[in-house]
Amino acid sequence: MTNIHDLTLEDKAALTSGADAWHLQGIPDKDIPGYMITDGPHGLRKMRDGGQYYDTVPATCFPPAAGLANAWNPELARRVGVAMGEECVQEKVAVILGPGINIKRNPLGGRCFEYWSEDPCLAAHQAAALVEGVQSQGVGTSLKHFAANNQETDRMRVSVRVSERALREIYLSAFEYVVKHADPWTIMCSYNRINDMYSSENTWLLTDVLRNEWGYRGLVMSDWGAVHNRVASIKAGLNLEMPPSDTDEDVAIAVRDGLLNETQLDNMANGVLSLLDKVRPAMEREGFVYDAAAHNRLARCAAQESIVLLKNENGILPLSADDHIAVIGEFARTPRYQGGGSSHITPTRLTSFLDALHGRDINAVFASGFTLDDSPQLPSMTREAVDAARGADKVLLFLGLPEFAESEGYDRTTLDLPSKQIDVLHAVRKVNPNIVVVLSNGSVVSVADWQDETSGLLESWLLGQAGGEATADVLYGDVDATGRLAQTIPMSLENDPSMMNFPGSEGNVDYGEGVFVGYRHYDTQHVPVAYPFGYGLSYTTFAVEDMQVDVTGRTSATVRASVTNTGKRGGSQTIQLYIAPRHESAAARPVHELKAFAKVELDPGESTTVRFELGERDFSYWSERHADWHAEAGAYRIELGFSSRDVVASTSISIEGDGKSMPLSDMSNMGEWMEDPIGRDVFMRQVSRFEAAGVTVFPQDEVNRIFFRAAPLNSITSFMGPQGRRLRERVLAEYANVSQASAD
Amino acid sequence: MTNIHDLTLEDKAALTSGADAWHLQGIPDKDIPGYMITDGPHGLRKMRDGGQYYDTVPATCFPPAAGLANAWNPELARRVGVAMGEECVQEKVAVILGPGINIKRNPLGGRCFEYWSEDPCLAAHQAAALVEGVQSQGVGTSLKHFAANNQETDRMRVSVRVSERALREIYLSAFEYVVKHADPWTIMCSYNRINDMYSSENTWLLTDVLRNEWGYRGLVMSDWGAVHNRVASIKAGLNLEMPPSDTDEDVAIAVRDGLLNETQLDNMANGVLSLLDKVRPAMEREGFVYDAAAHNRLARCAAQESIVLLKNENGILPLSADDHIAVIGEFARTPRYQGGGSSHITPTRLTSFLDALHGRDINAVFASGFTLDDSPQLPSMTREAVDAARGADKVLLFLGLPEFAESEGYDRTTLDLPSKQIDVLHAVRKVNPNIVVVLSNGSVVSVADWQDETSGLLESWLLGQAGGEATADVLYGDVDATGRLAQTIPMSLENDPSMMNFPGSEGNVDYGEGVFVGYRHYDTQHVPVAYPFGYGLSYTTFAVEDMQVDVTGRTSATVRASVTNTGKRGGSQTIQLYIAPRHESAAARPVHELKAFAKVELDPGESTTVRFELGERDFSYWSERHADWHAEAGAYRIELGFSSRDVVASTSISIEGDGKSMPLSDMSNMGEWMEDPIGRDVFMRQVSRFEAAGVTVFPQDEVNRIFFRAAPLNSITSFMGPQGRRLRERVLAEYANVSQASAD
Repeated sequence: MTNIHDLTLEDKAALTSGADAWHLQGIPDKDIPGYMITDGPHGLRKMRDGGQYYDTVPATCFPPAAGLANAWNPELARRVGVAMGEECVQEKVAVILGPGINIKRNPLGGRCFEYWSEDPCLAAHQAAALVEGVQSQGVGTSLKHFAANNQETDRMRVSVRVSERALREIYLSAFEYVVKHADPWTIMCSYNRINDMYSSENTWLLTDVLRNEWGYRGLVMSDWGAVHNRVASIKAGLNLEMPPSDTDEDVAIAVRDGLLNETQLDNMANGVLSLLDKVRPAMEREGFVYDAAAHNRLARCAAQESIVLLKNENGILPLSADDHIAVIGEFARTPRYQGGGSSHITPTRLTSFLDALHGRDINAVFASGFTLDDSPQLPSMTREAVDAARGADKVLLFLGLPEFAESEGYDRTTLDLPSKQIDVLHAVRKVNPNIVVVLSNGSVVSVADWQDETSGLLESWLLGQAGGEATADVLYGDVDATGRLAQTIPMSLENDPSMMNFPGSEGNVDYGEGVFVGYRHYDTQHVPVAYPFGYGLSYTTFAVEDMQVDVTGRTSATVRASVTNTGKRGGSQTIQLYIAPRHESAAARPVHELKAFAKVELDPGESTTVRFELGERDFSYWSERHADWHAEAGAYRIELGFSSRDVVASTSISIEGDGKSMPLSDMSNMGEWMEDPIGRDVFMRQVSRFEAAGVTVFPQDEVNRIFFRAAPLNSITSFMGPQGRRLRERVLAEYANVSQASAD
Repeated sequence: MTNIHDLTLEDKAALTSGADAWHLQGIPDKDIPGYMITDGPHGLRKMRDGGQYYDTVPATCFPPAAGLANAWNPELARRVGVAMGEECVQEKVAVILGPGINIKRNPLGGRCFEYWSEDPCLAAHQAAALVEGVQSQGVGTSLKHFAANNQETDRMRVSVRVSERALREIYLSAFEYVVKHADPWTIMCSYNRINDMYSSENTWLLTDVLRNEWGYRGLVMSDWGAVHNRVASIKAGLNLEMPPSDTDEDVAIAVRDGLLNETQLDNMANGVLSLLDKVRPAMEREGFVYDAAAHNRLARCAAQESIVLLKNENGILPLSADDHIAVIGEFARTPRYQGGGSSHITPTRLTSFLDALHGRDINAVFASGFTLDDSPQLPSMTREAVDAARGADKVLLFLGLPEFAESEGYDRTTLDLPSKQIDVLHAVRKVNPNIVVVLSNGSVVSVADWQDETSGLLESWLLGQAGGEATADVLYGDVDATGRLAQTIPMSLENDPSMMNFPGSEGNVDYGEGVFVGYRHYDTQHVPVAYPFGYGLSYTTFAVEDMQVDVTGRTSATVRASVTNTGKRGGSQTIQLYIAPRHESAAARPVHELKAFAKVELDPGESTTVRFELGERDFSYWSERHADWHAEAGAYRIELGFSSRDVVASTSISIEGDGKSMPLSDMSNMGEWMEDPIGRDVFMRQVSRFEAAGVTVFPQDEVNRIFFRAAPLNSITSFMGPQGRRLRERVLAEYANVSQASAD
C-alpha cells in the first residue's frame, strides 16, 4: 500500500475527490489507479462514455430490494451478491454503489423499490449477506444512504428531525448491523440533513457513531452532489467527494492555513488508499467473463422467492397446464421489472410472462387490457379483455404501476393503481369470477378496495429480468410460493403512522411517529391492515411445535422449535421471531419487534428444528436517559409467527436485565425515591429526625399524596421552607455517601 | 404605587416569592400588603386554615371549562367571570388562579376537564371573556399553565419536544390571544419543560415571546413548586415564586455577587407592586356580599349551554311532563359535577337530577343501577334497573366517570366507561328500547361501542352545582339544546393522533403529530369519528343562506351570511367559520381550521345576519423558514359550518398574501431558481455565456432533468468543475445586484 507520507499535500487532497462522475482520482506517477465505481444496487449500471443516463452496458438485472426482501433469505442475497461481484470484475468496476438499506418509512417514498423493508432486522440480515457476496469477489459495496434518507421530496436539503431513539432503533440499526457483520468497504452518506446537519458534514454520524462506536474502518463517500463544504466534510469524516467539485486546492490551502488538521486529511486519504489496495487484485484480473446464463438462472430463483401469494381462494392456484387461461394486462407482455433512476439496469435478457408461457407451450388468450401511459382507457381494450376472459377457466390479470410512477427523484402521491386498470378488473369480473391478479409495483399499492373481486392475488413486486419465468413458476406451482411481505399493506394511506409528517414542510420533516414505523404502529395500535408484515401464503401448510426457550444469562436466551410441513407437497415457511416486552417499561415500546427469522424448506411430512440465539441487544431499546442501549429486567414474550399478526407459538420468560440504573437526584420524584431501596432508606431516616422536631413531611390527604409522589425532591422540600432546604441537603449528602459505600 | 427605589434589596427579593402557599409576601412597614391568591378556575377554592386539601369555604361551582367550552359563548363566560370576581371580592382573594387554557392534546389527559378545547381559537375567545369578567371586579386572573402542560404524567419534569410551528399555532396561540385581548393580570408558568427548558427558567417563553413579542406587562408566577433555580427564574422573567422556598436571601446574594442584574430584579418586583396596586381597591372594599342565589341561577344557565345533545332519534327528546320515565344510574342522585385537584370547589348548594325532578313535581321511578366505586356489579342492582325500566315510556340512564377517574395529578388510561355501567345499559335495553343516556364526564368517553342501543344521547360533561336542574331544563325542552362539542369524540382511542406519543418516555414526550391535533388530524386524514368537533343537535333547525365574502385587503376579508331558524320552536345555533387553504402551500396544513364563531338565538322563522372579519393572522401559518407568521398568496375556501364535518355554506376567495418571500441562495434548488422571475433571468443570462463557451448546463435526458430541478445551485454547479464554480459565483453576484436594485 502506498504510504501516505510519500504523498504531497496536493496528492492527498486529490485522493479525497473523484476524477469524474464515475472514477476515483488516480495519481499515475505514484502508481495510484483511478478505478471506476458505478451504480447498483441490484445489478451493474455502468454508463457508456457520453451516453444518456440509461445508456449502460448490459448487466444481469436481479430483483430490486423491494422484491428480494420478501425472500427473507440471506443466503439467496449472498448468491446474488457473488454474481454482481463477478460482473464488476468483468467490467472493471471497483465498487458497486449499493445496497440501499434505508427504512421504508412511508410507502409513498419514491425509492421504496430500492430499499428492503420497514423493519431494520429484516433489511440488515439480507443486505449484510449481499455485501459479503459482492465483496467475496474482491470488489467493494457502498452501503447507502447513510442516514435517514427516507423520501425523495427535497432530499438534497430536507432536515430530518428525529429523536435519537428512533434514529438508533429504526434508521441506523440496519447500518450498524451490516457494518459490524459484513464490513462494507464503502458507505455512501445521504444528501439530507439530520436534525439540521448535512450527513456529509455530520461528525457525530460519520465519526462518533460510525467509526468510534461501531468500529468502522472503511471509506465514506458522498452521495453525488451531497458535499457543500469540502473542508467541513473532511473534518466530519468523509473520505471521498463524488463527483469532484474542483475544490482539491481549497483542501490543500485549508491545511496550509491551519484550518484543517493534516492528520485528518491523512486519515481520509488513507481510507481511499486502503480501498484501492483491497480492490486492486480484482481490478488487475484480466479476461474474466461471467456466466450470463447462470446469472439469469439465479435471477429467476431470486424472483421466485420475491413473489408473495396474498390470496388463494378455492384452490385457484396453482394453475394446471390444462387450465384454459386468459392473460390480461399489458404487464404480461411488457414487464415492469425495475424502477427509475440510478438503479436502472440494461438487462442481459428479458423474459415477459407471455414469453414464459410460450416457453412452456401453453396457449393462452391474451388481451393487453390497458396501456401503460396515462391516456384514458379505450373501450375497445376493455371489450377485448372481457372477450378474452369470457371463455377462460381462469383469468390472470396483470396489474401494476407504470414505470413513470416510481423513480428516484420524486415520491408518489397515491397508493392507488391507475383507475383504468381497476375498471378492467370490474369489467372482467362481470363475465368471469375466477380471477388471479398479479401485481407489479415497487412499493405498496392499495388492494382493499378491489381485492374482493379476485380469487387469487399475487404481489410480485419488481422481479428483475427473469420475472416472467419466475411468475409462471409460482403460478403453475413448479415452486412453492415462499415470499413473505417485507412491508405492511395498509387498508389505506391515511392509516400510515408517518402520514401526518410526510414529506414535511419548509425544509424539515418531523419523524413524529418515532419508533412506531410500519407494523410497530399497526400492531401496537391495533389498526386493521390489508396484509400484515411477514405475511404470505404457501401451497402447503406448516406447524410449529415444541417451542422451548432457555434463558442462558442475564440478557440472553436460546429459542428452539420444531417446524413440520403438514401439507401434501414440498414448500418453504419463514419462522419469524418477535420479542414482546410484557413488563412496565420506562419507554413506550412497540407491542413486539422482529429480532430473528429462519426460512426452512421441507418435504411433505418432514420436520426440522429452528434455533435462535437472542442476546442483550435483542431485548434492548435505545434509552435516551442512559444515552445507551438498555435491556430492562422483566418479562418478555418470545413469539414465533408466520407473520406479525399470526403468532403460532409463544413463551414468556423473565430476564434479569443489564442492571443499568439511574442515580437519584434532587430532581428524582418522591415515587422514585420511595421505590429505590437505598433512597427510601435514606429519606425515611432523615424524615424521622425532622418529624421528631415537629416538621410535617408526608401529606395527610389523598390529593396531596398523589401530588407528592410525582413531585421532585427539590419541589417537595421547597414547600417546607428553611427546614425543607436542610432536609434536602441532608438527604442528598447521605444518599451520596451510602451509594458510594455500596458501590465500593 | 410604592417606588421600587424605596425598597431594599431584601424587600425586592421578598416580593418575588410568596409568604406561604396562598399569600403574597407583604412588607408591612412599607405598606405592602400580603394579599391572598387562591385556586380556581371555575369557582373559588379558598382553603380554610389548617384544613385538608378539600376543606374550603363555599363558593359557586360553575361548570368546569370542559363543560362551559361547549357553550361557544364568550358573553356567558364573561358573566361567569364577573360572578367569580364578586366572590373573590367578598372573600378577599386578590387573584383567582385560572383560567387554564392548555390544549386538549389527548383525551386521556388527566386535566382535560379543566381545559377548554382541542382548538385554540375556541379556547381563546371564551377564556378571554372570562378573564375580562373577573378582572372587571378589580381582582386578577392567572392564565395557566404557560405553556404546553398537556398531560399529568411526570408533569413536573417532562420535556415536551415540539416544533416551534406546533407551539405557535396550537399551544401558544390561545395564550397569545388572551394576553393581547384581555390582559390577564397574572400568568402561571407550567411545571414541565419545553424542548428541555423548564418553563420557570425559559427566557424565550417568559420574556422574548410573552413580553417582547406579545407586549405582556403583567406578572408571571410559578406553578406551585415549579421553580428549581430561583435566580435563573428571575433572569428568565418570573416575577413570583409560589409557594416560597426560603431562597429570598439567595436572590439578594446573587445581586450582591453580580450574578443577577439588579435591574432585572427590580423589573420582577415591580410586576408584583403593579399587581398590588391593581387589586388594592377591591381588597380594601369592606362588607361586600355576593348574591349566592343569583350566582346559582347563572351556574344553571351556564350548565344548560354546556350540554351537548348528540343523538335524538324518533323525537325521544324533549321529554313531556306526561312521560312515565324511569331514571337509572347513581349519577342522577349523586351528581358528578367537577373534577379533582386544585379546581375542586365546595359548592354553595348542589342539585341532583332527582332533586330537579322533585322541584318539577315529576314522579319517576329511580334505580341507582350501579355504585360509583370500582366494586363488581351486584346482580340485584341490575335487576332493580331492569324492573324500573320495564314499565316506563322512556328510560333516562345516567352514566359517567366516577370522581376518582379524573383528577389533576394523573392521566386516564382508557376512554371506556366502567363496564358495569355498560352492562346495565345492555340489560335495560332488553326490556325497553326507548333509552336516553345522559353522560357525566370531564373528558371524552368512548360511545361507539354502545350508542346504537340508545335513542337519545346527551353529553353533559361536568356541569357544576346546578347541573341537575340544567339537565332537566334541556331534557324537558324548557331551553334548547345549544351546546356544541369543544372536543372530538373519536371512534377509538387508537385513532387519536397523539397516541403514538402519549404520555412519553424517560422524561420526554414528542409532540409528533405537530399541528395535527384533534379535528385538524381527523378531518385532514379522513378518519371516521363518533362525533366531530363543533357538533351538537338542537331541538329546532337552521339554514344558512346568502353567504358573501368580500376581500378587503391583501390579507383580509369580511364574511356575511344570513341564518334562519327553520323549525317550529326557538333555539340557538353556532355558526363556525373555518378557513381551508386551497393552494399548494409550502407547509403541510390542516384541511381547515376554526377561525371564528357566532352563536345566534332565533325564534321560529326569524333570521339574522352573522358577520366575521378575517385578518392576516387568520390566513397565516407559522413559517419556520420565515421564523414568522406567513399568509401565503393563493386560494382559500371560507366555510361556514354547524360542525367541522357539516359545512353548510362555503365560498372560495383568492388573497394576495403578505408578500413575504425568501431570497435565493446557493442552496436554493434549480426549481426555485427557475420559478423566481429575477432568479431565472439571472441564471439564464449567465448560462447562455457559458454555453456559448461550450459548457453543458441543462441535462439532456428526462432522469437528469428531474434530478436537476431538485438539486441546489451549489450541487449542480459543483458537478461542472472549475467552470461550474465560476458560473455559481457569477449567478450569485448578479442576483445580489439585481435584487438590491429592484428593492431600492
